[in-house]
Amino acid sequence: MLRDLAELKGILPPIPTPFNERDEFARDRLRDNLRAWNRCALTGYVVLGSNGEGVLLSPRERLDVLRAAREDIPADRWMIAGTGCPSTRETIELTRDAVKIGADVALVLPPSYYRGRMTREALVRHYASVADTAGIPILIYNMPACTGMDLDAETIVALAVHPSVIGIKDSGGDVAKLGAVRAALGPGFRVFAGSAGFLLPALAVGAVGGILALANIAPAECLAIHEAFVSSRVDAAWEIQLRMIPINAAVTSRWGVAGLKAAMDLLGRYGGPVRGPLVALTQREIEELKAMLVRAGLPQEDERGARS
Amino acid sequence: MLRDLAELKGILPPIPTPFNERDEFARDRLRDNLRAWNRCALTGYVVLGSNGEGVLLSPRERLDVLRAAREDIPADRWMIAGTGCPSTRETIELTRDAVKIGADVALVLPPSYYRGRMTREALVRHYASVADTAGIPILIYNMPACTGMDLDAETIVALAVHPSVIGIKDSGGDVAKLGAVRAALGPGFRVFAGSAGFLLPALAVGAVGGILALANIAPAECLAIHEAFVSSRVDAAWEIQLRMIPINAAVTSRWGVAGLKAAMDLLGRYGGPVRGPLVALTQREIEELKAMLVRAGLPQEDERGARS
Amino acid sequence: MLRDLAELKGILPPIPTPFNERDEFARDRLRDNLRAWNRCALTGYVVLGSNGEGVLLSPRERLDVLRAAREDIPADRWMIAGTGCPSTRETIELTRDAVKIGADVALVLPPSYYRGRMTREALVRHYASVADTAGIPILIYNMPACTGMDLDAETIVALAVHPSVIGIKDSGGDVAKLGAVRAALGPGFRVFAGSAGFLLPALAVGAVGGILALANIAPAECLAIHEAFVSSRVDAAWEIQLRMIPINAAVTSRWGVAGLKAAMDLLGRYGGPVRGPLVALTQREIEELKAMLVRAGLPQEDERGARS
Amino acid sequence: MLRDLAELKGILPPIPTPFNERDEFARDRLRDNLRAWNRCALTGYVVLGSNGEGVLLSPRERLDVLRAAREDIPADRWMIAGTGCPSTRETIELTRDAVKIGADVALVLPPSYYRGRMTREALVRHYASVADTAGIPILIYNMPACTGMDLDAETIVALAVHPSVIGIKDSGGDVAKLGAVRAALGPGFRVFAGSAGFLLPALAVGAVGGILALANIAPAECLAIHEAFVSSRVDAAWEIQLRMIPINAAVTSRWGVAGLKAAMDLLGRYGGPVRGPLVALTQREIEELKAMLVRAGLPQEDERGARS
Repeated sequence: MLRDLAELKGILPPIPTPFNERDEFARDRLRDNLRAWNRCALTGYVVLGSNGEGVLLSPRERLDVLRAAREDIPADRWMIAGTGCPSTRETIELTRDAVKIGADVALVLPPSYYRGRMTREALVRHYASVADTAGIPILIYNMPACTGMDLDAETIVALAVHPSVIGIKDSGGDVAKLGAVRAALGPGFRVFAGSAGFLLPALAVGAVGGILALANIAPAECLAIHEAFVSSRVDAAWEIQLRMIPINAAVTSRWGVAGLKAAMDLLGRYGGPVRGPLVALTQREIEELKAMLVRAGLPQEDERGARS
Repeated sequence: MLRDLAELKGILPPIPTPFNERDEFARDRLRDNLRAWNRCALTGYVVLGSNGEGVLLSPRERLDVLRAAREDIPADRWMIAGTGCPSTRETIELTRDAVKIGADVALVLPPSYYRGRMTREALVRHYASVADTAGIPILIYNMPACTGMDLDAETIVALAVHPSVIGIKDSGGDVAKLGAVRAALGPGFRVFAGSAGFLLPALAVGAVGGILALANIAPAECLAIHEAFVSSRVDAAWEIQLRMIPINAAVTSRWGVAGLKAAMDLLGRYGGPVRGPLVALTQREIEELKAMLVRAGLPQEDERGARS
Repeated sequence: MLRDLAELKGILPPIPTPFNERDEFARDRLRDNLRAWNRCALTGYVVLGSNGEGVLLSPRERLDVLRAAREDIPADRWMIAGTGCPSTRETIELTRDAVKIGADVALVLPPSYYRGRMTREALVRHYASVADTAGIPILIYNMPACTGMDLDAETIVALAVHPSVIGIKDSGGDVAKLGAVRAALGPGFRVFAGSAGFLLPALAVGAVGGILALANIAPAECLAIHEAFVSSRVDAAWEIQLRMIPINAAVTSRWGVAGLKAAMDLLGRYGGPVRGPLVALTQREIEELKAMLVRAGLPQEDERGARS
Repeated sequence: MLRDLAELKGILPPIPTPFNERDEFARDRLRDNLRAWNRCALTGYVVLGSNGEGVLLSPRERLDVLRAAREDIPADRWMIAGTGCPSTRETIELTRDAVKIGADVALVLPPSYYRGRMTREALVRHYASVADTAGIPILIYNMPACTGMDLDAETIVALAVHPSVIGIKDSGGDVAKLGAVRAALGPGFRVFAGSAGFLLPALAVGAVGGILALANIAPAECLAIHEAFVSSRVDAAWEIQLRMIPINAAVTSRWGVAGLKAAMDLLGRYGGPVRGPLVALTQREIEELKAMLVRAGLPQEDERGARS
């Protein structure tokens, strides 16, 4: 059953995939993490995004993670599955599997290996092939830091011609472009900020929410920025946004997934090891991160109480 | 006499330098344009910025334009002079000349020809040398589309250590970075959006205004966005911002100075020819621009009345 | 049994993976193609490289293609298997499988999805993990057009510290860098030009051969360039190189794998369809390609005889 | 009187502009340097190139340097003047002045400030305007590290339609592109390698020589590479090329003009200070440079003898 897309807004964390010390998917750890997150007013979760190390999982692991997540994501919360693969056919297949497992939306990264040949036409064809067979809405995933391709406004508008392509998660941060996309496509096209670093400015140009690594470790703060904005308290939103900037950079551009997992460990969630070729933080970097968490008002002790 | 920097906010157009058909500075046309702009509540003007074709002028022409502008910019409006040159010594010299002529602030582009050697240290040294001798406040000018160098947050913070470096005009549009800069330097550091495409989002992360090509042809709309934002009417601001997006792109990223001058001609101001290597719009592009002006609610006829 | 690395030189085509009209691996077509290529003095073949659409194949298909190729590659020719995957563990696994199947060398693309975190240390660790368990020599695969990461000379030198990392296929074309690498690592480090566009200049700075898309359709010409160079007839080499430049661009930077497959079809080999998201050439592009083949002295008719 | 362009080949250093300690052009030092260089079989000199800090000089200084150079460059050696300025009109003017002073060829950098608008058409128009009025041959100067614009093969071919545009100095190092340009334009179009790092490979694809920073400090070695190549001793050429790679990197990509001037000082020539925003080498960097000179076989003592 398709959900009402007007409800697709607010804050969703792109959750990390927990591994145990043998580098296997740690199913119980995911449950623990989701139980803690479920206590917050998060709209839902992105599973197998960049923070989920989706590209580092085997095809079977991907299905295991999606199934486990769906079990522990309440029915009234959105589950968005990252299903973009290098080939069109593998993307179609994984999207179909995700639908069977119960994903509400598919988040589809543009295929980027042959980027020199990824003309607008090739991308339109790829997204249309996936959308035609998906049976659930498709969210474009613009992630230039990982794909080396920054979808321009015209391309996004061209992809959105397909009725199932209903929005975008943009991690590029060019909010002027997001504004142009929103201007061209109207409020029905759901724009999500892909990083807390530009959540407030993106909301100011018509974004409906954020899919934010930071929401894994500071869900209350991310929700508060969004709530303050929608209730026209921009100053209050800005104050929290300002406080989150350094810690957000630490778990995104600076240290990425390894930073995010280390922060989760420090805050009493389960982060655990990253999978190679990613490299864990050094002890010194962990100390620096710890100090940043404190400065951001995200102390380990407070969270520990909420853990059990 | 130094002005109160707390007043440096709001909207300032970076004005084009008018040339006559013999490719000479058209002094009278500048007067006409300034008289029309002076009827609006613009904070002041940037002279010899990128839109002023400053880099295409001879040293003598630069002084001519600055002098002419100062004569026609009322004493209570800010005159910001673009004084960045390839060498430190030429930048110092032009800045001093601008001070003598009556500039209130110098807008200093980072020298970019030897960009491979423009380390943070080299840039700090350059800006400090200029700021030490300027006698007026310095605004950093981050303009990656022209310099091929995008100043990062750390560099901006390092440049701002000098007490005379009081703010930045950023045309790069990475508002997450602007937020980080504002977070690091506090409200005393004046951040200006460098393009109307991200004026509203920049205001949302603490910018105090915009230095906007669009303000040359749509000053009322730019002022209205700013006013709506500061009076907490974000929706009203967004509505105007949304309407301005296509025409702003036309006079910035798409057609640049040639587009801006053509738009001014269409709106009853004096745009006139661009100087080579810039190329004028084709007749077909002018027709397209005309239609965009109408769609943006900037019709030629209305403005014509305000011209004489 | 390990081969004598001193013999790893000369020309090797990175062969395309043939698909039938149902988008399945066309095993017989690969046999036909290899039989034709085996008549030339090619040193060996790269299987599952970028031209092999390796990233678009499922894990099982990759093994099928490697097995089929090994059956039809004579024992005295090198089989180099592309085994680079996004994760270290998958790369290790595929490399081991390739060894079992009989690959002589593994060509390992650097993992690029999390490129912001792919520090020199992370890459050294990744390559060392793969090389430690491979049991066959490793060739680095620098392919900035596909990975968005251009390995610099220092990184290449750092990777080569591992005794099993014995060379590089470079498709970036910065021959000054290749010279620097060769200068630092000596003649034991095997440098291969990754495109015929710079085969001759790469040989001039110490490369031992080329792994060239062009060698799929013009093996005789590629071999002739190499032979002329090693026998000090640079002018003769340059004359052929010059004639190959346009057609080489057509099957690499301009049209990529789709261009290569179309050229094979035109020349009486089996190219067949590309897999999505790649897009086939239009009829008009095919006509243009046909004319380029003729101009390059690679006419369809001559080749047809050699086909059966 | 126009020289025979067939003679425009071989090695030319782009000479640095010497400044005294008061940051003024040190006319006598230039004479000393030229006298030393004139003892070598250099084809001529580039004055006011990137290594000449041309963009950091005032209009008057540029003429002073050109005049001084012409006095001390023997009539039988080529003087190539760097005359590219941001505006077409200033470029025309400086080119004319250079002609009057006796320049044989003008080296024209593409104007890059408004690079977003520097379409092929705009560049063709710019170069044609300059070439139409120059009266001397024009050499295109492709210098992506400084302009942020890398002229592609099609653009170079389009510029070469003008009969006065007779060649290119390419500092980008994409020798596949140089080969393509040479293939399209024939041997009449003079291609010069813009850095010693790819001199030999460029010669292998049809370049006629090099305009090389390294030729300021190692003219004999640069000449020897060229001579070995033209007499078909590629191995001998490669041996010298190999030895020059680290020191060439030091005076180009790594430390630029400051490195070059420091090396000249160490070798008994006059380097002297760089002009801001360029920054001199630290003492530690000078020590490192010294060691590199020795390793390259360019010891200070030997040269000192040749100085007086």
